[in-house]
Amino acid sequence: MSFQRLVRFISTDDKIHFGEAILSNGLTDSRLIESAYKITGDIFGSYEITSEELPVKKLLSPLSSVQIPTVRMIGMNYRKHAIEINLPIPQYPCLFYKPSSTINNPADPIVIPKVAQIEDAKVDYEAELVVVIGKSGKDIKEEDALDHVLGYTVGNDVSQRTWQIQRGGSQFSTGKMFDTWAPIGPAIVSPSLIPDPNSLNISSKINGEVRQNSNTEDAIFSVRHLISFLSQGTTLQPGDLIFTGTPQGVGSGFKPEPKWLKDTDVAEIEIENIGTIQNFVKFD
Amino acid sequence: MSFQRLVRFISTDDKIHFGEAILSNGLTDSRLIESAYKITGDIFGSYEITSEELPVKKLLSPLSSVQIPTVRMIGMNYRKHAIEINLPIPQYPCLFYKPSSTINNPADPIVIPKVAQIEDAKVDYEAELVVVIGKSGKDIKEEDALDHVLGYTVGNDVSQRTWQIQRGGSQFSTGKMFDTWAPIGPAIVSPSLIPDPNSLNISSKINGEVRQNSNTEDAIFSVRHLISFLSQGTTLQPGDLIFTGTPQGVGSGFKPEPKWLKDTDVAEIEIENIGTIQNFVKFD
Repeated sequence: MSFQRLVRFISTDDKIHFGEAILSNGLTDSRLIESAYKITGDIFGSYEITSEELPVKKLLSPLSSVQIPTVRMIGMNYRKHAIEINLPIPQYPCLFYKPSSTINNPADPIVIPKVAQIEDAKVDYEAELVVVIGKSGKDIKEEDALDHVLGYTVGNDVSQRTWQIQRGGSQFSTGKMFDTWAPIGPAIVSPSLIPDPNSLNISSKINGEVRQNSNTEDAIFSVRHLISFLSQGTTLQPGDLIFTGTPQGVGSGFKPEPKWLKDTDVAEIEIENIGTIQNFVKFD
Repeated sequence: MSFQRLVRFISTDDKIHFGEAILSNGLTDSRLIESAYKITGDIFGSYEITSEELPVKKLLSPLSSVQIPTVRMIGMNYRKHAIEINLPIPQYPCLFYKPSSTINNPADPIVIPKVAQIEDAKVDYEAELVVVIGKSGKDIKEEDALDHVLGYTVGNDVSQRTWQIQRGGSQFSTGKMFDTWAPIGPAIVSPSLIPDPNSLNISSKINGEVRQNSNTEDAIFSVRHLISFLSQGTTLQPGDLIFTGTPQGVGSGFKPEPKWLKDTDVAEIEIENIGTIQNFVKFD
């Protein structure tokens, strides 16, 4: 049997396990997963969901950084976000990357290092639907694209706009590279529960205030198209992540004053049928 | 004892080994490494250079893609190259990435997929000094930076300029992402043999014609500075690669006509005291 909501967690034995989340109330909120059926074997190959119920002491990112070969990111993939940042609707997906060392747990602090605290510390959140590749492939056709998906999770592409833009030398990477700046989770939700990844409500709240509130149907390039596009001449590998872009409502887009993340802020990202991640912001 | 020139290769037993290259003539040309002393253990930790001499049947990239967490690239890091492409001297390093799936062996074909053959197939070579991180670190000071270096190797940052520039949506990534587009090798040369990585001749030849011919002293940001810069708030990991930028003489810079790579071309990159990689170009 395939998993429905794959979690990785520390149990009361202080060991790390994979498990099938046990939901008490039909939700997949990271704060509500208290136990899971232990999974043994290779989650990318042959595995078994056992009947052993383990308490969840601490929820981890559903894959560890060493299980993630490449973290691909798509920029400007929501129509209203492109308008918000005054850019034309792109003709092709805009690709960049985060190093896998940015991967963070679904409820751990986002640490803002000193180097990111320059010039008003323009630190921003980006709610994103994240695709987890389950099966290797190259030159994947759009109609076959979803066969390569292990599942979907929620991500926050934390970004420092000064390093991303003014000091990036045209490339976004420096402003997005810091440890803990890619929280993901709470679970990898099976495609069997997400028949259409481009019809999901997606939102972010900062300290409870709604900032982004959109739907993945506003994406310019669908999940199918992105997988096909990114696999042209390029082998996608099990564990690869694709952050599929963020909708309008990022902090830098607010007028007359942008709304940057501050020390002790709580950033909450939610996607319908997938779950919620909630991370404190900690200035180092 | 530490290695001097670490190679990875298939021997006559058809198995993959690490080894200390045996040089018959004082050079580290990939075509001249015919045997190596077998290395056992963990090349990032405790290993032993044995006295067992193994024939080299085929030289591989000195690390496999799974041993490389992150491939960082520095753009516009040579003064004369910045001038050649009409860009100002950058104030900060310009960072981007390749996925580790691009890693290629030092003498295997560079495969140009159909998607990169659009609009005159503007495929280009970039000779680069590649730093291999040996020891994990974060917030590394410049004076300590070289302690984190396992060694140096030669790389070619193969690039398709249409996808990098006109179709990249401002980001270089798509034009550099294809399988086989990051040949590295022939060996990882110990820092004990390279006291100053910023005083090495670096060149490229296409079908024997010299195109790039410079010295790493022309780099705007030194290896020490790059390691320190990239580790700010960011954990560099054993096996991470840093491609440190390319000097003037890339194909796109030639006037009146650029000199793009064509099917069956041979691209040869050489760095003083490190070695040579030589790859055929194969249009798919």
